[in-house]
Amino acid sequence: MDDIEIEFDTDDGVKADVLIEGLPGIGQVGKLVVEHLIQELKAERIVEITSIFFPPQVLIEPGGVVRLPNNEVYLWKGKEQSIAFLVGDYQSTSNEGHYLLCEAYLDVAEELGVRRVYTLGGYGVGQIVDEPRVLGAVNDRELVPEITAAGAVMTGDEPGGIVGASGLLLGLAKRHGIEGVCLMGETPGYLVDPKSAAGVLAVLSRLLGIRIDQARLAEHAGEMEKILEKYQEKYQEIEKDREEESLNYIG
Amino acid sequence: MDDIEIEFDTDDGVKADVLIEGLPGIGQVGKLVVEHLIQELKAERIVEITSIFFPPQVLIEPGGVVRLPNNEVYLWKGKEQSIAFLVGDYQSTSNEGHYLLCEAYLDVAEELGVRRVYTLGGYGVGQIVDEPRVLGAVNDRELVPEITAAGAVMTGDEPGGIVGASGLLLGLAKRHGIEGVCLMGETPGYLVDPKSAAGVLAVLSRLLGIRIDQARLAEHAGEMEKILEKYQEKYQEIEKDREEESLNYIG
Amino acid sequence: MDDIEIEFDTDDGVKADVLIEGLPGIGQVGKLVVEHLIQELKAERIVEITSIFFPPQVLIEPGGVVRLPNNEVYLWKGKEQSIAFLVGDYQSTSNEGHYLLCEAYLDVAEELGVRRVYTLGGYGVGQIVDEPRVLGAVNDRELVPEITAAGAVMTGDEPGGIVGASGLLLGLAKRHGIEGVCLMGETPGYLVDPKSAAGVLAVLSRLLGIRIDQARLAEHAGEMEKILEKYQEKYQEIEKDREEESLNYIG
Amino acid sequence: MDDIEIEFDTDDGVKADVLIEGLPGIGQVGKLVVEHLIQELKAERIVEITSIFFPPQVLIEPGGVVRLPNNEVYLWKGKEQSIAFLVGDYQSTSNEGHYLLCEAYLDVAEELGVRRVYTLGGYGVGQIVDEPRVLGAVNDRELVPEITAAGAVMTGDEPGGIVGASGLLLGLAKRHGIEGVCLMGETPGYLVDPKSAAGVLAVLSRLLGIRIDQARLAEHAGEMEKILEKYQEKYQEIEKDREEESLNYIG
Repeated sequence: MDDIEIEFDTDDGVKADVLIEGLPGIGQVGKLVVEHLIQELKAERIVEITSIFFPPQVLIEPGGVVRLPNNEVYLWKGKEQSIAFLVGDYQSTSNEGHYLLCEAYLDVAEELGVRRVYTLGGYGVGQIVDEPRVLGAVNDRELVPEITAAGAVMTGDEPGGIVGASGLLLGLAKRHGIEGVCLMGETPGYLVDPKSAAGVLAVLSRLLGIRIDQARLAEHAGEMEKILEKYQEKYQEIEKDREEESLNYIG
Repeated sequence: MDDIEIEFDTDDGVKADVLIEGLPGIGQVGKLVVEHLIQELKAERIVEITSIFFPPQVLIEPGGVVRLPNNEVYLWKGKEQSIAFLVGDYQSTSNEGHYLLCEAYLDVAEELGVRRVYTLGGYGVGQIVDEPRVLGAVNDRELVPEITAAGAVMTGDEPGGIVGASGLLLGLAKRHGIEGVCLMGETPGYLVDPKSAAGVLAVLSRLLGIRIDQARLAEHAGEMEKILEKYQEKYQEIEKDREEESLNYIG
Repeated sequence: MDDIEIEFDTDDGVKADVLIEGLPGIGQVGKLVVEHLIQELKAERIVEITSIFFPPQVLIEPGGVVRLPNNEVYLWKGKEQSIAFLVGDYQSTSNEGHYLLCEAYLDVAEELGVRRVYTLGGYGVGQIVDEPRVLGAVNDRELVPEITAAGAVMTGDEPGGIVGASGLLLGLAKRHGIEGVCLMGETPGYLVDPKSAAGVLAVLSRLLGIRIDQARLAEHAGEMEKILEKYQEKYQEIEKDREEESLNYIG
Repeated sequence: MDDIEIEFDTDDGVKADVLIEGLPGIGQVGKLVVEHLIQELKAERIVEITSIFFPPQVLIEPGGVVRLPNNEVYLWKGKEQSIAFLVGDYQSTSNEGHYLLCEAYLDVAEELGVRRVYTLGGYGVGQIVDEPRVLGAVNDRELVPEITAAGAVMTGDEPGGIVGASGLLLGLAKRHGIEGVCLMGETPGYLVDPKSAAGVLAVLSRLLGIRIDQARLAEHAGEMEKILEKYQEKYQEIEKDREEESLNYIG
């Protein structure tokens, strides 16, 4: 396999106006929003991306069927616009892989004819926020008025930058001539945060000019939290086992 | 040398129906089962795999002769079927290497004409299990009835997935058109576990339709445990030395 | 993108006699000096370097516009000499990347016709130094008299060598037929140190034969320290979030 | 630069019968022996090896002149045999680099026409040994009688194998048709150990059929220990600084 494998499910020359990224990250904010959008809009998967930069394991689906960790692109064709969504199991396990994967995502975006990328995430503030703001960042100064008009706050005061795909996609998109907008919901950082996600979704909906029912978002978040708790326990055990195992080899 | 070197011991165009993987892992369950099978069936080595992704060291065999860490494929030609076994000293030391090694194993499997891969391992539950179950996972939904009929339990409830070669081989095999079945014996995770291995062997024997004497399995496990204890002590010392040594260089 | 991307802002065949490196490092000494020089001399940017070896993130500029982490070369054309400056956000995140980036910097230096590289840094002594010395190191014995005459001390007693770009550039420059001089201001190591920077600037000015107003250096350092404090707090939070997040994935 | 650069100092088609490796390692045993041999025999440098797999820094020689970390091959032409020595500052910083560097060393050995490689090291036993034995390991069973006759002990009981170049060179040499012998002096592991080195030197001298004055070995070790103490202190400070520095960047 190549270091990164991109496979289109269809040969139909599918097109999209914008790409919205919601990979796993702080507070699962981006993931919550994009998975909600995919469900509500009934978007269809069009691309699967696998890579040696993802964790070396498979995931077990209900029923016991395994699959490789992947990132996927979904497509929704509306009357006035088509929207592609980027979601997935993991981000890169290495620094260099982050760059190479984001370039791959942008290759897909170019092939789809995408003119703007939205990246969604949480902005960890380390404590519960009563009224979480949606912070914005862009890769072109001309986008600022549009973003602030939609309700995002441009503080220009986020030291440390934007880490991972949500940041890199914006920075690299510029070189592809693609506009980039990042929306970050303030969040404690250590909890799945549907409230923060709702705020991001509200701003995003305004920017896209579409209406999305939010009712199921909190419900979805509740389920996610339950699953995460179980995963977390398990993952810690497995990691512990792996560490012990490294002392257990017969040479 | 190439990053991964595959060397066949013979030019004879050897063939196998299935490949059974038992590389080191949780509770050494897979390793115990496959090494037992190789001994009982008197399988012969047909392939050696070495790689820069294995630990940078050699192993000392009794008598003082060293050899590179490797993974090996053994072959048993039965009347009705031929079975290849994948065993070895280590798994990859890097995430990316895991993917690349598993692809290499599948290249070998394709060359052998393998139609199904079994991967064997332990499923760490963190505590002693009185009656360890054998959990199953497959890379194709159609395999489920066959696996459960043989006694494996498909809970579909293994969060965290299957880490390392046992998982990746299944995920990647699908792309090669090869069926994949993973059998995991429940095990505490921090002990060599012949009881868990016996459970896995029982299910596997039913699936393969062969009878294997289990008598020597426990015995073999006993020896393994003694060796492991010694290795473990030694390895910890060596690791400690290596750490200290890194402060000991003359620059 | 290539692993390292070098982009000249102009096609004008710009030339420089020397290149002065001031990338982030111990006490930010080199960074302080070179950023001060760029401001005082009103040098202009001529090259941008981005790389998969930099951290996988973007930085947010005031106003909310993001940019990729980069290293930059600035140029000042004086009457008698032209000076290029190398500054940037980060050094490499991997050992191998350090070598490859330094080779890339030297490719730029060669293209500019540079005959000498100055690398500036702090030399951590672990405690406050009343009168910090400027320690010197060179890549050619014949440079020693010139450097000591300018006030640098050649103790030849810096065990551990010079880590990162300030060291590697000197070592690799020799192969390109480029002279290399490293000036290190003694500094506690854990503080931004304008006093140490002032010492380095004094020696460097003598070597270059130019006069630089130092007034704004301390001021600049004061601002830097304030920013750093904020960044540091934030960075620690983000790192903490990232660690937690790695346990938070839905598999 | 290439990942690994090998440069011969001469075009003279130099040849050697054996190559003796003494890179840094446990107790500095191998390094002590080979540096002593180079001095006593007045061997001359013939090859320099630099690599992106070495630490990203330069070393400062007395007088303040820097040089890249390297590994070097020295040659001694005796009346009846020619001996090449492999010494150097560091081993690889990455697992994969270990393999690739050892392959490069063997390429040099092949070019020199070497028929046997000796690798020297310490075998850490975790405590002071009154009469340290010299343990042997070989890459071909036929070498055992010769090695034991020279005084090495083949216990065949070194779990954990031989880590780093001393081990890998043996394992990889076999593929090049080169005999490999490893001699390991028992040593506590955390001290520079001239006594252990003297034992290794005695066995090695018998194998080579040469007489070496040992008088200066202990003296040399004494100096090395003093230098190491200083380096160690410094290195720890520098590492500490580097860690702190990583929080000190202006983004």
